[in-house]
Formats: sequence, structure tokens, C-alpha cells
Amino acid sequence: ETSLVEKSINSIRFLAIDAVEKANSGHPGLPMGCAPMGHILYDEVMRYNPKNPYWFNRDRFVLSAGHGCMLQYALLHLAGYDSVKEEDLKSFRQWGSKTPGHPENFETPGVEVTTGPLGQGVANAVGLALAEKHLAARFNKPDNEIIDHYTYVILGDGCQMEGIANEACSLAGHWGLGKLIAFYDDNHISIDGDTEIAFTESVDKRFEGLGWHIIWVKNGNTGYDDIRAAIKEAKAVKDKPTLIKVTTTIGYGSPNKANSYSVHGKDVKKHWSRHVPEGASLEAEWNAKFTEYEKKYKEEAAEFKSIISGELPAGWEKALPAYTLESPADATRNLSQQCLNALAKVLPGLLGGSADLASSNMTLLKMFGDFQKDTPEERNVRFGVREHGMGAICNGIALHSPGLIPYCATFFVFTDYMRAAIRISALCEAGVIYVMTHDSIGLGEDGPTHQPIEHLASFRAMPNILMLRPADGNETAGAYKGGYVISDNSSGNKPDVILIGTGSELEIAAKAGEELRKEGKAVRVVSFVSWELFDEQSDAYKESVLPAAVSARVSIEAGSTFGWEKIVGSKGKAIGIDRFGASAPAGRIYKEFGITAEAVVAAAKELL
Amino acid sequence: ETSLVEKSINSIRFLAIDAVEKANSGHPGLPMGCAPMGHILYDEVMRYNPKNPYWFNRDRFVLSAGHGCMLQYALLHLAGYDSVKEEDLKSFRQWGSKTPGHPENFETPGVEVTTGPLGQGVANAVGLALAEKHLAARFNKPDNEIIDHYTYVILGDGCQMEGIANEACSLAGHWGLGKLIAFYDDNHISIDGDTEIAFTESVDKRFEGLGWHIIWVKNGNTGYDDIRAAIKEAKAVKDKPTLIKVTTTIGYGSPNKANSYSVHGKDVKKHWSRHVPEGASLEAEWNAKFTEYEKKYKEEAAEFKSIISGELPAGWEKALPAYTLESPADATRNLSQQCLNALAKVLPGLLGGSADLASSNMTLLKMFGDFQKDTPEERNVRFGVREHGMGAICNGIALHSPGLIPYCATFFVFTDYMRAAIRISALCEAGVIYVMTHDSIGLGEDGPTHQPIEHLASFRAMPNILMLRPADGNETAGAYKGGYVISDNSSGNKPDVILIGTGSELEIAAKAGEELRKEGKAVRVVSFVSWELFDEQSDAYKESVLPAAVSARVSIEAGSTFGWEKIVGSKGKAIGIDRFGASAPAGRIYKEFGITAEAVVAAAKELL
Ligand SMILES: [Ca+2]
Ligand SMILES: [Ca+2]
Repeated sequence: ETSLVEKSINSIRFLAIDAVEKANSGHPGLPMGCAPMGHILYDEVMRYNPKNPYWFNRDRFVLSAGHGCMLQYALLHLAGYDSVKEEDLKSFRQWGSKTPGHPENFETPGVEVTTGPLGQGVANAVGLALAEKHLAARFNKPDNEIIDHYTYVILGDGCQMEGIANEACSLAGHWGLGKLIAFYDDNHISIDGDTEIAFTESVDKRFEGLGWHIIWVKNGNTGYDDIRAAIKEAKAVKDKPTLIKVTTTIGYGSPNKANSYSVHGKDVKKHWSRHVPEGASLEAEWNAKFTEYEKKYKEEAAEFKSIISGELPAGWEKALPAYTLESPADATRNLSQQCLNALAKVLPGLLGGSADLASSNMTLLKMFGDFQKDTPEERNVRFGVREHGMGAICNGIALHSPGLIPYCATFFVFTDYMRAAIRISALCEAGVIYVMTHDSIGLGEDGPTHQPIEHLASFRAMPNILMLRPADGNETAGAYKGGYVISDNSSGNKPDVILIGTGSELEIAAKAGEELRKEGKAVRVVSFVSWELFDEQSDAYKESVLPAAVSARVSIEAGSTFGWEKIVGSKGKAIGIDRFGASAPAGRIYKEFGITAEAVVAAAKELL
Repeated sequence: ETSLVEKSINSIRFLAIDAVEKANSGHPGLPMGCAPMGHILYDEVMRYNPKNPYWFNRDRFVLSAGHGCMLQYALLHLAGYDSVKEEDLKSFRQWGSKTPGHPENFETPGVEVTTGPLGQGVANAVGLALAEKHLAARFNKPDNEIIDHYTYVILGDGCQMEGIANEACSLAGHWGLGKLIAFYDDNHISIDGDTEIAFTESVDKRFEGLGWHIIWVKNGNTGYDDIRAAIKEAKAVKDKPTLIKVTTTIGYGSPNKANSYSVHGKDVKKHWSRHVPEGASLEAEWNAKFTEYEKKYKEEAAEFKSIISGELPAGWEKALPAYTLESPADATRNLSQQCLNALAKVLPGLLGGSADLASSNMTLLKMFGDFQKDTPEERNVRFGVREHGMGAICNGIALHSPGLIPYCATFFVFTDYMRAAIRISALCEAGVIYVMTHDSIGLGEDGPTHQPIEHLASFRAMPNILMLRPADGNETAGAYKGGYVISDNSSGNKPDVILIGTGSELEIAAKAGEELRKEGKAVRVVSFVSWELFDEQSDAYKESVLPAAVSARVSIEAGSTFGWEKIVGSKGKAIGIDRFGASAPAGRIYKEFGITAEAVVAAAKELL
């Protein structure tokens, strides 16, 4: 048996070396050093079903040190996942392959999250473990614990140095995520060399401070039993996450060809072959358990199925509030809270919170309490002032189950703190909802450090993001075409000028329109709530809103004008702010910066 | 005396309360709770000259919890700084005032750095302390220690939760910044309420792990002597930064009007009035010391004066390499290293490094060693994988002395991790150099997590940033007009088409130009290395490069096309990438994504 373990571990190393050699690119060091933990996890510890990577109750594994992805590909291959066949290993890092240069959940079933940008994977793992704890508390019954899995993560020195890892691990400790088990690959090496040059802190003490249980495996290269014992100990500690510091030698093994996969591959494959039938059994057992559950707990089962499947309850959209002209005007953040609270009633998977700005972002779900260590069934998550960690934790929650819909919030300007996580949301199709309030100089006295300028443009440029900047309640509840005419006095003729506004500035555009109409102009006012949605409309629809024949166009938005040439054309005028903001009451700043109806009127007249 | 201290502390509280009440906006809680530390620092401990806020050897103070800025304004006012007079306090948070809603170094002399976005201030303080340690090691002599000051910082729970604070504090411990003294305002409150809901870690243990000296002042409300003793102890610990955890009650004091500033103002002002003459003496003493230094250490003094003044040595620009057509082609990151190394010889204040990618970013200064705890005179800074901390530390270095020119580096995509710090660089005019390599899908196999797409656009939209995307050695050394014609066969006539490229894609544009010329077209090829610089040119110059009469324009850039309509016009075509990248060899991705000369030729023909 030991000999087979050795063979298997060496096979993992060889699969990594061979793939990297063939691609002439990639990182064999981590897969070699971490092959023992990888082997023990996938061959001895983890519960999964290779033929159904999406089986709900599987243990989750995250390779936070994503550059070592050949470790994960080798393990998925040995375990029998269809996503990583021999030819996939051979096309490592090639166009169209299932084995890209960093793990991507949307390319490779069996990969839970997309990693590579350091520190984010461990934060995703915190999200996965949060999801498990939350769902278990909500749905498990004393006689039927249908939710019961662990979340494992391997992170390296690079992840440990990133601030986001500290943010997320502080929350994991606070929440007491006892089923989160992290392996810290302590190999004293990062890209620039020995960690002595930049990383001499005591990680153990820091994690002790963060409320984690710490275990040190001193010989991670060959101390297989120590690794096994550490996992056992970690599982026994139920109220704290565990960090297993595994001291390894990067590239350990450098095995000679005598031990290579081609020599021992047959034995190793035979050894691993049991995982396919075992996985099928695990899932079958669980399915039987769920059938029992469904019989006994109908209502809960229906909710739970919606969370597993991602199918929203029929008619959920009817819960969205609708507003009329008589509805009282209100800040969109308050309207947003109405929407969130209405949706929480019909969407069992909606949960989330703010980075210490709940009462400013208006994100509290009033019918629920706080998700905390001892109240994990609740749905208001308190992230503290940890925007980056918040985003990545939400990515983990979203990718845990198709029906979990996390939202998170802060001031729009602080998307700068979490942009790397938002980008991963967009890339990996996580579907996280970002509620970003205080979206312009309109926040006034807090001044330029708190006033977004370039942020609308910078997200319009990011692929795969759907951004809405609503102007009222109905736009907050849903904006389906991105841009539409809100008023037009041209009586079906060509308007003289089109005024385009978004968010709070739509009102300014409307006011300017009234002024111009008083002077006899035919004016169309367009709300441009979402560029991405408008882009998706038919050419005919676009032409109906922004006729090509009308080149006199004025846009107004309290943000960078960058990009607006696309909408207003080279003959139009974009009114906006191409400098940093200032500290003063909002009205004064709008006036000083020329974000006014007068400015729109003047610009329109210049074009007429 | 004790009574005067009480009066002074209460005056600080009242100044804050009054200002917040008048502005009807702002945060009095921190100034009230931290008034004792503030008083002791500015009245008893710190060395500064109110009439010259830029005196080189002053102690530096950073309010990392920037929302409490009235504390700092009150202290600057009492100390006699001209920047915060009574009328400035009365115009707190108003248009054009010297007392904006968060501290801004560019508005208020006496404020060292711009804070507000949490966690960044303490990282700035690490940069300030690094600068002191570095300059002291380089210039101090056994008989004349002309550089000798402390860096003090107050941070709150919010700052402590932010990952960037952990990054920077880990480095501060690693570097042994013994003259950095941080006060942690431990008041158990953040915006969402009690820190119990999201922040229950042991900060003490974490900082012990980070290699700091820890002192706990249990009664920060009235334990003045404990605060004094803590500072004394902190100064005695020379090889570690110190965290003084000061447990306070937010809003402590709520003093009644009987203790208000209007009642005791005269006494308090009299008490503080000594700081103006004392400050003048401190500076005069130091000037005398420097005169001695200059006599004895001519060469060092000349370098040091350049660092103090920010005046660059005459002819420094001649050190920049110049390239000819015969120069071997090379990656711009290698050319960048040649520039950095050439500049390091002539600019005494140039120092910096990379976030663990020195050998990829090519940022090592070959004639220097590493800045480390025991070799602080060296100039290669090893930041580890801490992009956000790196940016904010560089802001601190830059703002320490006008002649310090920090640079820092990572892959361009990871600007997402440090965008909040880059924004502060831009806002506060710090002049940090960001060397961002691997700027497109061209990095190939690492895949979409590592390939920037929207990043060029997102920085073009950010105010006050000068971004250059050089295509060759000379553009790397300097690009003075932003855009210019690199070839044109129209013989002074109107070209049929203008092809515009940046960075690596300029070569593609040039190649396409050759193809089109073979077919008899008059083609102009334009290098568009910097949008911001081009924008600054005269209309005549712009017209000479991009004549309005030529509407057939094709741009090519391996990034988002967002914003390019401004350059190519509504009749032109922007070739770029509006999706995420992919993992494959670079050539293949360029081809698959249509970033090719063929695509440029085809687009040009469509327009002709
Ligand atoms: Ca490592
Ligand atoms: Ca606090």
C-alpha cells in the first residue's frame, strides 16, 4: 500500500513535469511539493463523485495558489473526472483546452472556483465554507443531515502575503468555520526567491490571533502520516477553521524517470479506479437520504431544491415593487433596499451584506438576523471593512450552489479596493450582485477620496459586467433595455436634440429638456441606465431611441466623460467630470463643476 | 498644568463638535475619543515647526482614520499652523476650504498624506518611516545625525480590518521600522455598530506575529500618563515598530459647555503659543547642524539637498538611453530596466521595487543591494506579494521628501489589487512611478486571470494619471507629445487612412500600413503612446497628427475598445478585445482574437 502511495505521489509529480515540459510554460514546483497533500486529499479524504462534478454534497477543494494548477489537473485526471482526460493533460495551456494556465471553473468541471490572482482562492474557500454552514443550519434536521461537507484549500506564501487573505481569514475565524481546512504550503520560496527577503512574520501567531486552530506538519515531503493526522485533528476542531502549515520543499522529489508515471501508471490508475464507483455510491446514498428528507420535510425540500438547482420559484419577479408617478421620490439606495427585501421573501438563496456600511448602503434584510457563528441560519452577512475579502467570499458563496445569490455593498468609490474580486466574478460567471451606492460627487462633504469619477467608465470597459445606474424606483427594480425615451415633444418627427442622462443626472436632463421646450425646441430625453443592456438590443431598437439622423446629442453624467463619444458621437457633447471631486455640500459641487440643467441647455444650444 | 491639559483636551473636543455641528456633517466621535493622544503628541511629544510645515526633520503624523480629520485640524490650529486658522475651522467641509471632509496634503500644509479610504494611511506611514530609515542610513554621520524623526499614526478598527494594513504592517515588522509608532484607537465601534459583529480577532496577537512591539493602554480616556509612558517605551524599542493599543470610548467626554473652548480658549491658546517659537528654534538648530554637515560632507550634502528640495541634478535627462534603428529590438520591460538603471545613477532619490515579480518586471537596480532591516541604505525594495500595500507605501515615500522618487511594479492586471492606492497617488500628486509590465493577452499561457483587457481604458478614465504604453526604447525613455506620426507615404497630401497603434500593436499597425501601401494607398501610421500627453498638445499639433479631414481611421490595441471612438471618430474602426482573454501561446491568442495586420488591412479597406 505504502508503495502505491509513493507511486501515486510520484505520478502526480510526473504528470505535472511532463505537462509543463510539453507546454514549455507553467509551474511544476508547487505540484511536486504538494503532491503528498494532494494525494491524501483526493485519494483518501475527500468525498466526491468524478462522474458528477456538481453533486451537491461533495467536499470542495480550492487551489488558492492557482499557478500550481497541474496539481489539480493531475488529481482530477487520476480520480476519473471526464474533464481532464489524457489528451487534456497533453494540451495544458493550449488554445481551447480544458487545462488552462490557471484553474477556471467555467472551463473545467471539478474546478470549483477560478484562481490565480493570489489570495482570492482562500477567500473563495471562506465563502464556500460559509455557504455550507449556512445551508446546514437552515436545512439539516436532527434525523437527516443532508448538508455535510468540508472545504479544503491549499495556499502558498504568495496568498499569505496578500491582504485579502487576512481579511477573509479574519472573518473565517470570527464566524467559526470549523469545516474549513487550509493547507499552507510553507516552502519558504516565492517568485523573487527566499521568503526571507520580504516575508518573515510568524504566520502561526497571526492565525492564532485570527482565531484559527493551527497545526504544523514539519515534514510535508514524506510525512504522510503526519498529514493524515493533521486532517483528523482539524476535523475534530469544530468551532474554528484550521490552518495546517505544511513545510515542504518546492519541487521536492525531482523524481527520476525510474519512478515516472509511464512506468507505474498502470498500477496507479488501477489504485485510483475505485473512485468512480465509490463516488457513484456516495451520490446514490445521498440521493436516497434526500428522498427521505423530501418525504418528511416538504417545504424545506422545495426551498433546498431551488438552491441546488438554481431554478427560481415561479413568479418570483412579481415580488418586485412597481412604482407610479404618485410614488414618493426617494434615494435609489432606499429603493434598492425595498427591492432586496421584496426579493428575499421569494428567493431562498438571497443573502449578503455590506462592508460596514449597511445603514448607508441600505442592504439589511429586515426579516432576517445576522449570519454569525452561533446564528448561521440568518442571511445578513456583516463583512466589516473588508471590501476585497467581501467580493471574493461572495464569489465562493455564488459558486457553492447555483441558487445561492449573494449580494454585497459599499460606496461605489471603494470598488477600487475589491476590483480584483469583481473581475473574477465577471470572468467566472458567479452572478454576484454588487450594490454600490454613493456613486458620484453627490456624496458631497466627504470629498474627493470618497467621490467616484472614473468608476462608471472603468466598469463599462470591463467585460461580462452588467452595470445599471438607476434613476428611480422602476429602474432600480429592473431595466430591461438599457436605454429608453422618457419624454419627447417632437410628435413623431425628428427631435432637434437628444438629451441623455443616467442616475441622478437624468433629472437634470429632464429639467433641461423642459427649458428647451419652452423655447420651442423639439427635445427628446433618454434614460441610459445600462450601456451593456442597450448594446444587446436590436439595431432597430437602438435607432428608435437614438436615431442616427440626430447628431445633436448632449449627455450628462456626474463622472468621467471617457467613452461617451460612442453615444453622443463626434458632433455631440458629453457633460461630465474629468477631474477629482471636492469636499463641499453636493449642490455646490454640482454647480461649481457645471453638472447643471443650465450647462445642458447651453451645450444643446451650441449644437443647434 | 494638569488642569491645562484637561482644558486643552476638552478644547480639541469642542473644536471638533462645533465644526461638525456647523457643517451639519462629519465625525466628532474619533476626535473626542482620541483627543488625549492627539494632545500629548502635538503638545508634548512631536517636533515640528508650525510656520514651516515642510521643515525636513519634522516628526510625521498620519491620521489613518481620516474621517476624524477634525482632530488633526484642531491640533494644527492650536499648534499655530497658518493653514488652519479660525475661519478655516468654521468652513469645515465647505467649498474651497482648507479643512475638507478628509485630510488632504495638497489642500492643507501640515497634513502629510491624503487619507480617508481606510487602511491606506497606516501604509503611508510605513512609507514615511521607510524613507526616514533609508535616508538616515545613507546620510547620517557619527558626528552629525541630520536625519532623525519619528512617524506617528492613529488608526482605528476600520483600518485594522483592511487587508492593506496587514500587508504594510507585515513589511514594517520585517524591515524593523523602530521609529514607527502606531496608536490603535480601540473603541470597539465601527459604522455598523459594535465590532463584535465582524471583528473579534486578537489584534495584539496578529501584530506580535507581524513582528511588532505591543503596548496596551487600558484607559485611553483619562490615562494620560499611561499614554506618555507608552510613547517612551515605544521609543526605547529601536528594532521593531510599536503598536500602542489605546482603549477609548468613542465620543468620550461629551463635555458640557462649561468646559468649552469659548470658555477656556484663551488659556489654552496661551499654553500652545510656545510651539511657534519652539518650532522656529528646532528648525534653526537643525539648519545650523546642516551647515556643519555641508562643510564637512560636501558630496553627501549635495545629494541630500537634491532629495530635500526635489530639484533634479542638472543634465539628469542626458543619462536616459537613446536608441537608433540599429539598436537591437527588445521587450519594453527590458528597456525599462535600462532606463531605471540609467536614472538611478543620476537621481539620488530613485528607489523602489516589485511585488515579488522583480525578474519579470525587470525593476532591479543593479548597482544597489536590497533595502532590508540591516541594509536600509540600499535602494531595491522587496515588497512581497502585496500590491496594495506597495502602492500606499510608495505614496508615503514620495510625500516624505520632494526628491524621493519611488517606483513600484507588478503585472498590469494586478493594478486591480492596488487601484485604490494608485488613485490616491493621482489625487495627492505623489508622483509615484508605476512600472506595469505584461500589459495584454500577450502574456499568453497564464490566461484570462492574468491578461488585462479593461485596464488601459480604466486608467485613461482616471484623472491626473499620466499613462504611457511605449512601443520601443525611445518611447520607454520618454514620449513627449503623446502621439506622433511614425510613417506616412502621402507626400504631404491627405492620407487615405490613418492607422493608430500603441505598445506592441504599433508594430502590427506598421505592418498593415506596408501592406496597404503595396496596394497603392496613402497610409499614415501613428503611435499613440499617451492619450493624456496628446490631449495636452495644441490643436494645431493634434490636427497635424490626426487631420480632421481624414475620417478613415483604424486603431489597434490589445485591450478594450472602450473610449477609442474619441480618436477614431464615429466613422472609424477600433480593433481591440472586448471579452476576457484565454490561456494559450500569445501568437495563437492574437490570431484568434483578430489582433492582426490582416484585420487592420481589412478594416481599412472597409473604410476606403
Ligand atoms: Ca511559496
Ligand atoms: Ca472604531
